[in-house]
Amino acid sequence: MTGPAETFGERLASVTGERGRLCVGIDPHPGLLRDWGLEADARGLEKFARTCVEAFGSLAGVIKPQSAFFESYGSAGIAVLERVLTDARAAGAVTLLDVKRGDIGSTMSAYAQAYLADGAPLAADAITLSPYLGFGSLEPAIELARRTGRGVFVLARTSNPEGAGVQRAHTEGRSIAQAIVDHAAEINADGAGSVGVVIGATAAHGLDIGSLRGPILAPGFGAQGAGPEELSSVFGAAREHVLPASSRDILAKGPEVDRLRNAVRTVSALLSEHE
Amino acid sequence: MTGPAETFGERLASVTGERGRLCVGIDPHPGLLRDWGLEADARGLEKFARTCVEAFGSLAGVIKPQSAFFESYGSAGIAVLERVLTDARAAGAVTLLDVKRGDIGSTMSAYAQAYLADGAPLAADAITLSPYLGFGSLEPAIELARRTGRGVFVLARTSNPEGAGVQRAHTEGRSIAQAIVDHAAEINADGAGSVGVVIGATAAHGLDIGSLRGPILAPGFGAQGAGPEELSSVFGAAREHVLPASSRDILAKGPEVDRLRNAVRTVSALLSEHE
Repeated sequence: MTGPAETFGERLASVTGERGRLCVGIDPHPGLLRDWGLEADARGLEKFARTCVEAFGSLAGVIKPQSAFFESYGSAGIAVLERVLTDARAAGAVTLLDVKRGDIGSTMSAYAQAYLADGAPLAADAITLSPYLGFGSLEPAIELARRTGRGVFVLARTSNPEGAGVQRAHTEGRSIAQAIVDHAAEINADGAGSVGVVIGATAAHGLDIGSLRGPILAPGFGAQGAGPEELSSVFGAAREHVLPASSRDILAKGPEVDRLRNAVRTVSALLSEHE
Repeated sequence: MTGPAETFGERLASVTGERGRLCVGIDPHPGLLRDWGLEADARGLEKFARTCVEAFGSLAGVIKPQSAFFESYGSAGIAVLERVLTDARAAGAVTLLDVKRGDIGSTMSAYAQAYLADGAPLAADAITLSPYLGFGSLEPAIELARRTGRGVFVLARTSNPEGAGVQRAHTEGRSIAQAIVDHAAEINADGAGSVGVVIGATAAHGLDIGSLRGPILAPGFGAQGAGPEELSSVFGAAREHVLPASSRDILAKGPEVDRLRNAVRTVSALLSEHE
């Protein structure tokens, strides 16, 4: 199989090299729409989303829309999401759509087609995946991502207290979260960096991530409690592969575009100081 | 908290009492669209979906659209899904939307609002959920389902070989799949039957499901290999709570509505014989 012209790892390195590693979340939850003086409906969502793309599209390295907040408005919300993905990508950002999909067989292939195929209305540069049906079940998405120069981020270890029951359970002498990291590392041996993992930034994860050779999405930077120091203490030498994700702290500065952009600059500068 | 006028368990019992327990899947994958003489685009999807609702809406107890195959067409596909959910419900079927969502906090609440709130464009009678972030993280969806007389089906043990690595891993002296069943059973002690589980029909699951008091969605009936005998051998006395799901065997009889309806009648009769 011939690889894509540019691998996901190359594209990510190029964009973050220019713009920094901060991943800015677009999480239009109803309370935030109201704080911005917008109605919690599809029109309010559209205004919110366009403002975010205007503010972050040419500034942030990675932009992460949260699909749930668009799905709430049905097809009208999904139409807004299509536009966000297209416009953010056109403005030079890497788009990472947070959908946490996971299924098997032809259904998993359909999710792959929905989000990782060239020309799909909801095509993103990368998506998040959930591995409850087994890491192997995600193969159709991983395969398509590799073929199209896109990426996937598989949930490994999250910071929420309820996550431990599943993610720290043991299978074949290691935790499930570690097994996810190890499976991702095996695929990343090809050097394309297509398979990232999601590891929460706010608590010790206890994982061996030294051989991953792929990106680590670390939610919880900012409002949820992790600062630049946590990035070092939680991720150690792997810190250079981390994409710290922040959403609420930044979005709270809206709806003025300049204030949103300044918030991104401030958080990015804080991150660079600690690199 | 006052419960809804009718609980999900009551609604399900009433519909399946009249129509039988077969859950008919609407899985419009591209190959099937072509087999029906349709283009694999949003118009073909719409024609396919309308034919399914015409055929199954007034006949099947439970209708289960698979969201992935609608998401592939972006907002145009989601508009078709809205129509399927509305029309199937209006025709008297229980709609079970297979979305396998799972997230935390306000994001999980947004998924709950998207699929389980009265008046939401994509409101279904029930949805599937994926518990990689912990059973507890699903609470916003479970809570809203109970309040609105809807249901959720949480993935427990699936038949695909890759599923075992996660689902059979051990946590606090039991498998993860068993822990999911036990958590569901705790909530179902209220008698509302709001929390079902998903357990594959094609292989021994090794779970104690005797105290669940909720429905069991069992994919894999038909094309994937499980017959009426498997329902008894795999589920034992809990068989009366099982919703055997079948899709491909039935959909392969399309696009003629009469042949689709006859296929449902044939499979349903086969199931009743073994009850």
